[in-house]
Amino acid sequence: MMPVVAVETETLLSRFLHIRNQTEVLCRPLLPEDTVVQPMVDVSPPKWHLAHTSWFFETFILQKYFPDYHVFHKDYNYLFNSYYNSIGSRVLRQARGTLSRPPLQDIYEYRAYVNEHVSVLFSKINEHHLTEMWPVFELGLQHEQQHQELLVTDIKYILSTNPLAPALLPPLSKSELFSVNLPEPEYLSVAAGLYTIGHTGPDFCFDNELGAHRVWLDSFLFRNSLVTNQEYLQFMEAGGYQNFKFWLHEGFDLAQQEHWAAPLYWVKQPDGWYRFTLHGLQPVNLQAPVTHISFYEADAYANWAGQRLLTEFEWEVGAQQYSPDLASGTFLEDGLYDPQPSPGQTQLLGDVWEWTYSAYLPFPRFNKAEGALGEYNGKFMINQMVLRGGSCATPRSHIRSTYRNFFHPDKRWQFTGIRLAHK
Amino acid sequence: MMPVVAVETETLLSRFLHIRNQTEVLCRPLLPEDTVVQPMVDVSPPKWHLAHTSWFFETFILQKYFPDYHVFHKDYNYLFNSYYNSIGSRVLRQARGTLSRPPLQDIYEYRAYVNEHVSVLFSKINEHHLTEMWPVFELGLQHEQQHQELLVTDIKYILSTNPLAPALLPPLSKSELFSVNLPEPEYLSVAAGLYTIGHTGPDFCFDNELGAHRVWLDSFLFRNSLVTNQEYLQFMEAGGYQNFKFWLHEGFDLAQQEHWAAPLYWVKQPDGWYRFTLHGLQPVNLQAPVTHISFYEADAYANWAGQRLLTEFEWEVGAQQYSPDLASGTFLEDGLYDPQPSPGQTQLLGDVWEWTYSAYLPFPRFNKAEGALGEYNGKFMINQMVLRGGSCATPRSHIRSTYRNFFHPDKRWQFTGIRLAHK
Amino acid sequence: MMPVVAVETETLLSRFLHIRNQTEVLCRPLLPEDTVVQPMVDVSPPKWHLAHTSWFFETFILQKYFPDYHVFHKDYNYLFNSYYNSIGSRVLRQARGTLSRPPLQDIYEYRAYVNEHVSVLFSKINEHHLTEMWPVFELGLQHEQQHQELLVTDIKYILSTNPLAPALLPPLSKSELFSVNLPEPEYLSVAAGLYTIGHTGPDFCFDNELGAHRVWLDSFLFRNSLVTNQEYLQFMEAGGYQNFKFWLHEGFDLAQQEHWAAPLYWVKQPDGWYRFTLHGLQPVNLQAPVTHISFYEADAYANWAGQRLLTEFEWEVGAQQYSPDLASGTFLEDGLYDPQPSPGQTQLLGDVWEWTYSAYLPFPRFNKAEGALGEYNGKFMINQMVLRGGSCATPRSHIRSTYRNFFHPDKRWQFTGIRLAHK
Amino acid sequence: MMPVVAVETETLLSRFLHIRNQTEVLCRPLLPEDTVVQPMVDVSPPKWHLAHTSWFFETFILQKYFPDYHVFHKDYNYLFNSYYNSIGSRVLRQARGTLSRPPLQDIYEYRAYVNEHVSVLFSKINEHHLTEMWPVFELGLQHEQQHQELLVTDIKYILSTNPLAPALLPPLSKSELFSVNLPEPEYLSVAAGLYTIGHTGPDFCFDNELGAHRVWLDSFLFRNSLVTNQEYLQFMEAGGYQNFKFWLHEGFDLAQQEHWAAPLYWVKQPDGWYRFTLHGLQPVNLQAPVTHISFYEADAYANWAGQRLLTEFEWEVGAQQYSPDLASGTFLEDGLYDPQPSPGQTQLLGDVWEWTYSAYLPFPRFNKAEGALGEYNGKFMINQMVLRGGSCATPRSHIRSTYRNFFHPDKRWQFTGIRLAHK
Repeated sequence: MMPVVAVETETLLSRFLHIRNQTEVLCRPLLPEDTVVQPMVDVSPPKWHLAHTSWFFETFILQKYFPDYHVFHKDYNYLFNSYYNSIGSRVLRQARGTLSRPPLQDIYEYRAYVNEHVSVLFSKINEHHLTEMWPVFELGLQHEQQHQELLVTDIKYILSTNPLAPALLPPLSKSELFSVNLPEPEYLSVAAGLYTIGHTGPDFCFDNELGAHRVWLDSFLFRNSLVTNQEYLQFMEAGGYQNFKFWLHEGFDLAQQEHWAAPLYWVKQPDGWYRFTLHGLQPVNLQAPVTHISFYEADAYANWAGQRLLTEFEWEVGAQQYSPDLASGTFLEDGLYDPQPSPGQTQLLGDVWEWTYSAYLPFPRFNKAEGALGEYNGKFMINQMVLRGGSCATPRSHIRSTYRNFFHPDKRWQFTGIRLAHK
Repeated sequence: MMPVVAVETETLLSRFLHIRNQTEVLCRPLLPEDTVVQPMVDVSPPKWHLAHTSWFFETFILQKYFPDYHVFHKDYNYLFNSYYNSIGSRVLRQARGTLSRPPLQDIYEYRAYVNEHVSVLFSKINEHHLTEMWPVFELGLQHEQQHQELLVTDIKYILSTNPLAPALLPPLSKSELFSVNLPEPEYLSVAAGLYTIGHTGPDFCFDNELGAHRVWLDSFLFRNSLVTNQEYLQFMEAGGYQNFKFWLHEGFDLAQQEHWAAPLYWVKQPDGWYRFTLHGLQPVNLQAPVTHISFYEADAYANWAGQRLLTEFEWEVGAQQYSPDLASGTFLEDGLYDPQPSPGQTQLLGDVWEWTYSAYLPFPRFNKAEGALGEYNGKFMINQMVLRGGSCATPRSHIRSTYRNFFHPDKRWQFTGIRLAHK
Repeated sequence: MMPVVAVETETLLSRFLHIRNQTEVLCRPLLPEDTVVQPMVDVSPPKWHLAHTSWFFETFILQKYFPDYHVFHKDYNYLFNSYYNSIGSRVLRQARGTLSRPPLQDIYEYRAYVNEHVSVLFSKINEHHLTEMWPVFELGLQHEQQHQELLVTDIKYILSTNPLAPALLPPLSKSELFSVNLPEPEYLSVAAGLYTIGHTGPDFCFDNELGAHRVWLDSFLFRNSLVTNQEYLQFMEAGGYQNFKFWLHEGFDLAQQEHWAAPLYWVKQPDGWYRFTLHGLQPVNLQAPVTHISFYEADAYANWAGQRLLTEFEWEVGAQQYSPDLASGTFLEDGLYDPQPSPGQTQLLGDVWEWTYSAYLPFPRFNKAEGALGEYNGKFMINQMVLRGGSCATPRSHIRSTYRNFFHPDKRWQFTGIRLAHK
Repeated sequence: MMPVVAVETETLLSRFLHIRNQTEVLCRPLLPEDTVVQPMVDVSPPKWHLAHTSWFFETFILQKYFPDYHVFHKDYNYLFNSYYNSIGSRVLRQARGTLSRPPLQDIYEYRAYVNEHVSVLFSKINEHHLTEMWPVFELGLQHEQQHQELLVTDIKYILSTNPLAPALLPPLSKSELFSVNLPEPEYLSVAAGLYTIGHTGPDFCFDNELGAHRVWLDSFLFRNSLVTNQEYLQFMEAGGYQNFKFWLHEGFDLAQQEHWAAPLYWVKQPDGWYRFTLHGLQPVNLQAPVTHISFYEADAYANWAGQRLLTEFEWEVGAQQYSPDLASGTFLEDGLYDPQPSPGQTQLLGDVWEWTYSAYLPFPRFNKAEGALGEYNGKFMINQMVLRGGSCATPRSHIRSTYRNFFHPDKRWQFTGIRLAHK
């Protein structure tokens, strides 16, 4: 997965400790009560995330490379295995929110125990083992960053279902909410040709990005900016949610059944639309990118607008040609947890995950890793759609233009949004 | 509901403070995490019980009798109303376990706030108001005692579903588990006649016990002891769970579908049967009364044994004739939370609620109270069966022979057991 | 179940052939397509009723008493056993409507085959066997009459769910619909006393009517007429369906969830209320008894009216004292399949089954028969309410004042109605 | 959709009458009872298919082009519209099997009525209207052929769920079952290159095949024969259904939950595996292609075999290069309704639909037609997988190498099978 280069173990360890700490910083404002509930099956309790990411290092690193390692607790494998059949049976996903024990305090101790053992391991590991362990260790770091994003979106969902609408963080200042004048969107052009898709080069990527291969693309035009709340509101006001002809059949049925009439978290109040955020209920910022919409809504919006979504291949080529600047988007580290207006920026990376009209399928020559880690990505390659570009809850160091995220087309609790292409 | 007698307000207040404190003592061993989860819809999170019992005094006493009372929090009525349509809308029962906020600490402050205001109220209330308030206040005390029992059974259920099988309390000592030799069960006889059923006299009772009326009973014989675990095990070993002919149709279907093969909480281990208790996993005490069985199982057992369950009318008359001694049964105050063997005692009161073969229906001339408290009991008089006698989780001062408890025939998480009558 | 009297076998056989024929007469207007569908789980396809009633005689009579009897088809036991575990496994109830085969024609041949063999059996049976067989044979006749009523109500339901609203029978003539002036309802009085409840005497009854026993009744007053559509309409117009305070909790929840706002089959049209009948869509006859209401609605109506329902014991005593005339009610044989206004008649028998506020429980000393027929009634004695008096779909010769019918409190597709008692 | 060429109306009408007749020939062995049931939601009652295909011509041809056309029945639009929101509301899909009326006889009259009016229309239509109507009329013919395939698979499913396992057709003769020796499978090779995918040329195709576009393919090898029952049995015997590592996550969960252990319709008997067919229960022919498997099973089999499924693009190019001979496969007209062994034939067309590992997505520049027919294909482009090649239930004149069929990955009741590619 990663060519072995000369390793500076100190750097690696320090990255480990930094990422591990970042996870805990995210959870610091939570009360113990916040960390156990699961108001819907897609959401996991924060306590579970804190433990599961530690279980990953314990299972795939410490148990393998730390001599005579003793697990922190014999039952944690059963409790905190997510979906690895290879590693044994586990708590049903939908029951994660019924487990009051182990208490949060124990989980923090578990984290410290794992961190300490990893530190000790690094102090004495030989180069051979380090080389062998490296890719899995790197995967553990990336995995923990993925769970940082899920922590943000799961915590948001948990608090949003509470009638008290609690704000986890202080309200944003006026200037943070200040809305800008956006220039008219323009269309960027990509020429027809045979392009290489997929990850190449020595840096880390997930197995689902490998298998670089050629794809023919016809020329296309795509927008240099994301669809905004203002634009989306026009769709809503034009009756977009009620008109079947813009929708996929399964999407329209679901929207009717669930009474969808706006993005998730939007609340109509006498003085206009508000939305629930980690900073409490905030007025909808019309210039900000629309988010918390399903693929069905993204597709219906595009149809209403007479446009279409990009394929993941077009997206990747477009993103590479228009050199996205990581600095331009909003990421986890910015602590806003909300996509922002960015006049003059493409926002290809950061802010919102962009739904593509590509199903999540294996690239040619896709191969699952041997053993349990072969279950990481491959077994989910059905019934999901690809999203590209990262979001305001993604760590800045975690994203790249070949990154393939994937969710079922009905999911709305992630920071998901819309980029249009000319039809 | 209660004739007004000369009131000693000091005694009343001290009873209030005692009962309120008892509730908190019960919850003291819980961690904040334990107080928010809801592993099945019948169970409420302990935090909810703590708040709801306070909401009862706030809504029905303080808001009415405390001049210029300010509610502790404007949203608590929505959060902690159980089922009183008269008092407004509320959180869906099945969503109680998704609410992390308000945190446990706030609920303890809520309790203190209510207690203080009640104390102040007592210090200045005039006799007229006191007389008027008295029956509702008494109902609040009884209501809180009912929730003490539910706290015990709900906490037990919550911990039981945890793969760690956590023990809330220290293990019982050998002597507490010591099993005794029970004498052969005998049958007590009641003569045919016209009996008065229902509560009479000045003491407190619930509205569903009122309407004392005559009932003709043929003579009958009933057992002087409860069915034990040993007896129930014989039913299990004789294939009782597999043989439809002992069962009601809906009960057998359910038992098959849910794979019932033993009482709730029983676990087969290589060295015999164990059961989950608040003291951890304990060997089944063969001489103790069987508990945590549904009406369906109680009825099937009785059929298998060639006997029958008592009606609630027979039970009440039998209990009154064989003067149950409150001291003889196990109650909440004993802190065991488990029915005990009691050689030579009828155990009519305490230990386990006894399923009767009487549906929960209104007594003649049953009248619902005016207003919200009319919703207390009457609207549940359908599809449930009557249980009599209290259990090891019932406060000793809360039970009496006319007390009518009721649950749906499939419920198993209460301390429910079996008393037989001759067929 | 029935004392053996001198038997006139010819009469018995002719009764058999008459009842068997009556079932087929009922089904004659049906098309083959009508006889296979099952639009809800409570309803069985008519083809199934035609077969199941034959299976009953084949299984309990012919296989036992006809020497060397060959079953008509080896798989029919699996297909047409309703719920007798003793007789083996069977098609799931909810799958009855998926079975296109055997075709209707085969079922008529099955019926003829069973009829012929019964005729032959009667021509040669000896007195000993006849005496032994008699009670079961009588049960078979009564059983077939019960299915005649179910055929009427199931056919009605099947046609009612069809968007074409097909009328099985010609529309009623004007005179049949002519509405009369009803006198003001009066209240009949019954004195307090110890009454005998349950069937006595030599005639046939079901096992659930046996065990005659004494019941003390306080004096009570009950209406000499059924609640009419006009009266029920007042309840509807007074917002009765929207006001929780008249309702049992489970009933109100269900009514809200299912959007109940009128009896089953009622349809609001620009010129008033209509209802679906076997004669097509007909205007609601305001003077006729209300029907197709659940127990929940009957109870809510009674509460709204400041009255109550009778218990089954009060009903039985009242019916016996006010000597109902079988001629006065509408029965199956009248071919109207609709309750009628009957000025000056009590309508205690016929027209509509009257919901009582008694749960369906065993009478004292209730004993199930040995063998499969022990499953006839006893295993359903939970979660259902007793109805008394028969309906316009009950054969006139099938009803009596001790007859106990039973349905779950949410059921509406039977001809069920309301009789009030003074509160 | 189809360039207008000089039209021979007589030929067109005769094709219409032939196809319409073919549908009725298929249904001729059915009893009325067979035509109304719906044992699962994917299946429609045959009566519904017979009516819906007529509704298509009535709605899109006669109502538009036949002057003063009177619909056969005013309610049939509501009853027999499948999913066209543009055409109005309709019976819920899952309720199709509850409709006994209109009877089968009426539907045959409906068909005759439509046929006659179409014949009259053809006798007087002017060239302008004919040109305009032509593409929709052709779509109606193709649509009816699609329902012929569904009739075969739905009838098969309906009969299969019947405990009598009725055979619609006479058993196959020995020679039809005779099993052959298959040569070793070989792999056919396709060179890398830029290929054109999608339909070109003047002949009919569906809108989802249009938008011919270039696709780059790496070179690949694919099998010249379908996976046989024998091969699939090896997978079963090797524990393939129990080993998660071959499966997609959602597929394995479903297989476990539904207890899948063999293809749909397979039944283990003491002397080996049998399968339900329209000719009754037949021994599994080991040399015949495996069929009635879901995409999940096809993919798991491929993984177990160390191979993979083709993409739809590879399939199309492969099929075009290896010139499939329509004569070589089994089609609807052969009346076998079962895939057959075909030594030396590729079976790319006919026998079984071949699951590809391509999601059903729009081709570039896909455009929905204006109006109701825009709902024909486009709104289903989510959550389904593409199948190619037709089956033994497909009319021979209906298939071509660009034809894109699509089903959800869990569906098994179609004639679906497996073709492997080298990994």
